[in-house]
Amino acid sequence: MLISLYDTTLRDGNQARGINFSLNDKIRVTHLLNEFGVDYIEGGWPNKSNPTDEEFFKLIRKENISNSKIAAFGSTRRPKIAPEQDPILEHLVKSEAPVKTIFGKSWDIHVTEVIRTELEENLDMISSSVEFLKKYSEQVIYDAEHFFDGYKANPEYAMQTIKRAELGGAECLVLCDTNGGTFSWEVEKIVKEVIANTNCKIGIHCHNDTGFAVANSLSAVNAGAVHVQGVINGYGERCGNANLITIAANLCLKMGYDLKCKSNLPKLRYFSLAVDEVANVQSDIRAPFVGETAFAHKGGAHIDGVLKISHSFEHINPEMVGNAREFVTSDQAGGALIVEKLSRILPGLDKKSKIVAELLEHVKQKENQGFAFDTAEGSFEMLARRHLGLYEDKFKTLNYRLIESMGSKSKARASEAFVKLQIGEKIVHEVSEGDGPVNALDNALRKALIEHFPSIADIRLDDYKVRVLGSKVGTDASVRVWITFGDSKETWHTVGVSTNIIEASWHALLDGIHYKLKKP
Amino acid sequence: MLISLYDTTLRDGNQARGINFSLNDKIRVTHLLNEFGVDYIEGGWPNKSNPTDEEFFKLIRKENISNSKIAAFGSTRRPKIAPEQDPILEHLVKSEAPVKTIFGKSWDIHVTEVIRTELEENLDMISSSVEFLKKYSEQVIYDAEHFFDGYKANPEYAMQTIKRAELGGAECLVLCDTNGGTFSWEVEKIVKEVIANTNCKIGIHCHNDTGFAVANSLSAVNAGAVHVQGVINGYGERCGNANLITIAANLCLKMGYDLKCKSNLPKLRYFSLAVDEVANVQSDIRAPFVGETAFAHKGGAHIDGVLKISHSFEHINPEMVGNAREFVTSDQAGGALIVEKLSRILPGLDKKSKIVAELLEHVKQKENQGFAFDTAEGSFEMLARRHLGLYEDKFKTLNYRLIESMGSKSKARASEAFVKLQIGEKIVHEVSEGDGPVNALDNALRKALIEHFPSIADIRLDDYKVRVLGSKVGTDASVRVWITFGDSKETWHTVGVSTNIIEASWHALLDGIHYKLKKP
Repeated sequence: MLISLYDTTLRDGNQARGINFSLNDKIRVTHLLNEFGVDYIEGGWPNKSNPTDEEFFKLIRKENISNSKIAAFGSTRRPKIAPEQDPILEHLVKSEAPVKTIFGKSWDIHVTEVIRTELEENLDMISSSVEFLKKYSEQVIYDAEHFFDGYKANPEYAMQTIKRAELGGAECLVLCDTNGGTFSWEVEKIVKEVIANTNCKIGIHCHNDTGFAVANSLSAVNAGAVHVQGVINGYGERCGNANLITIAANLCLKMGYDLKCKSNLPKLRYFSLAVDEVANVQSDIRAPFVGETAFAHKGGAHIDGVLKISHSFEHINPEMVGNAREFVTSDQAGGALIVEKLSRILPGLDKKSKIVAELLEHVKQKENQGFAFDTAEGSFEMLARRHLGLYEDKFKTLNYRLIESMGSKSKARASEAFVKLQIGEKIVHEVSEGDGPVNALDNALRKALIEHFPSIADIRLDDYKVRVLGSKVGTDASVRVWITFGDSKETWHTVGVSTNIIEASWHALLDGIHYKLKKP
Repeated sequence: MLISLYDTTLRDGNQARGINFSLNDKIRVTHLLNEFGVDYIEGGWPNKSNPTDEEFFKLIRKENISNSKIAAFGSTRRPKIAPEQDPILEHLVKSEAPVKTIFGKSWDIHVTEVIRTELEENLDMISSSVEFLKKYSEQVIYDAEHFFDGYKANPEYAMQTIKRAELGGAECLVLCDTNGGTFSWEVEKIVKEVIANTNCKIGIHCHNDTGFAVANSLSAVNAGAVHVQGVINGYGERCGNANLITIAANLCLKMGYDLKCKSNLPKLRYFSLAVDEVANVQSDIRAPFVGETAFAHKGGAHIDGVLKISHSFEHINPEMVGNAREFVTSDQAGGALIVEKLSRILPGLDKKSKIVAELLEHVKQKENQGFAFDTAEGSFEMLARRHLGLYEDKFKTLNYRLIESMGSKSKARASEAFVKLQIGEKIVHEVSEGDGPVNALDNALRKALIEHFPSIADIRLDDYKVRVLGSKVGTDASVRVWITFGDSKETWHTVGVSTNIIEASWHALLDGIHYKLKKP
């Protein structure tokens, strides 16, 4: 059976704190969603106080959006006026979006206390608004706000509200768990009761306030819902909306439903990361299906099991969603793992040779000092290459020096870093400032190297993390620094450990640059 | 009805990539979990290749852990040997943990293909291992690995395995969704079938590979399970384990079950943040119940609704879990929480006064810069005292200066720090070395102050942590430094934020010393 996916990343997702899509961002996300193949893309709520959304609907008409239908969001008309006189409905019509989605009140107390009108008037607001919009739209979708809470408080009234939307000609009645406080067993029961009493398609819209957004959405489908609303990566107000990425993978790969985007599931991880990038949020490494660690195995028993039967500790094949299996290197894992990781980097290596055994010993020593190669495959590779004679450092550090001090108004002065390097026969001595010590060292290093190794201009420094090891001793404890580098083609991670944070950072910086320079 | 919570943050949580609890971290988390009141704390898997966990069980016996039972984790014996000869069981016995938890195989193909023995031998391994451990333990808990997948493949065999554990004397049979691929409706059905066929307590252990870990755990409770395993904040291998924070709140506040930790639910957010801090991971702002934005309202309609009826867009009262309502577009953020915190430190303060309002504004500005006062009550108190005129700094910084450089053998030379302070009318200028920049600054500061303020000799610097905020920008991102101080009487935490890690550390150091000097 075919289920429709209705994406509200640009409207409900944009209500998350910290997410503020610009007009260009919205156009980019729309293209991504269209390429992925969701059935509906809700572009926003066009109205006077929201000029970005109004503009969006103008611009999007000129774009080639062929897989998905564009929806504009709004609410039922205000009490006691005709639909023709209502400014919200007027803006919806002006948007010229082929689909209009409006929400209305299902919960009696919200009618009397929040919009402050009579229960009967609210029913009229629903049917007349849907009917009015139908004249200007291919489809009108009705979002029944607070449906589950409303149904629990007054089931007869809640049922009447959606029946009025059906009467008005709605394409789909979407039951919303607006406060996100409903459990899956309640959703299943109520959706079944609604389906028994209506003749329209039923949809579901969930929030994650109890951690049930995905479970509730899929329980609704189990009960007969055929339309699922959600947000890519689960952004949204409070605890977020149902994560459409997780929902798509579960529906299609595990529950046997058909989706328009089915053929694009092998690119699921790409779509998830691409939307995170536009939203400018850090991707959740543990996200179901698409997270960086979703198929990463660390426990020794798990690794052993997966090497014997891959489905031992994997509920699906990671390639089905564009992800990859990974064995995390750590002291919980045996030697087999390091060999396996090494053979991916340097295929054709004799795993039984003395030099590999010595390398493993070396890796273990480093891990005892606090190096964590599980998240630093760049440093692991450089360590292996140097040990195996496959990389000779293209420059040597003769000295570095860093000065920190307080400037005016008790603020730190810019950090000042000096580096002295030997490149071939040449000595290079440079100085640079930076916003903090590591930034200053990075700047000085680049300044010293750029002329000889122009490719380092492409390196981005994407992330920098610090972890204090063995906290017992306070400020003289060992420190582990972890840096993420990237260029146009790949991402790599390096690690440095020292009791001195500057030294640890320096080594992680150097590893990252040598990793880039190792390339022919 | 009372449900037991079994925490495996220190074992399964520690299998998450990027989480590596040190021995001290483990002791700290154990105290936090005991204070919160989980029923069981699984400390780790003691064995030869895991010296940290072995040491943990030795040390924890000397600590005062009165609310929770300590559990050691391991597996059933190896095939074809007596339990007395098995090294894994031997290590479990040696741990002297009052509770031993062992996992065994439920899925027939794992018996024949992974551990490679006969199905009958696996059954013997289960009963004999449980029986053997019972002699050395208050309780033995049996984790039925891959129970749901095993049950789907061969229900008779899966049932036999747990019946053998029951026969061996297990306290509880814990059904594990090891691969995290099961859905809540399947969990509910299978748990009901197990309960109909056994006489033992049934537990549940879920992973989040389909986004169902919490829903599956609670569906199992609905079906009759009375023991729930999970991890604080949902860390764990791949997509993580069931989040015990979400589970505790749902069970107690929404489903009406009783929990030992019930009275601590108003501190739920604090416990969640404190464990994140030890694990050194960024807290999930959208986490159900405890996330920074879990009760943040951004949409205008939502804000309007909440102002009219608070439950309009809130499924519970945020104070029940130590969280606070926040209006993202308004400036009322966290006000009540701060007032509440302030009145604990400085009782008798007029909450409505202008000076308190200004202080709140100041705190909010600082929090926008990245200060996190939740876990740094020392800095919060000093900020409040200074603002309210209740503390005047007993010394002033005129300058600090720090020099880092490389010495012989490419190793960092000792860090060299200079501080120039004004104490009353006197100028003190001192220099000191240290093992890393912060240690050098700390040493120089103590050297300059000790003669005037002998009490600072008692200050210990117990912990130092660094968190990079807003990682997008690499090494020039803001950095948050968090320091734990202690003396013979108490422990206090301070925070510093800057784009320069040295400056952030300097401010956290100063706050810690001023905190000590504030005492009469």
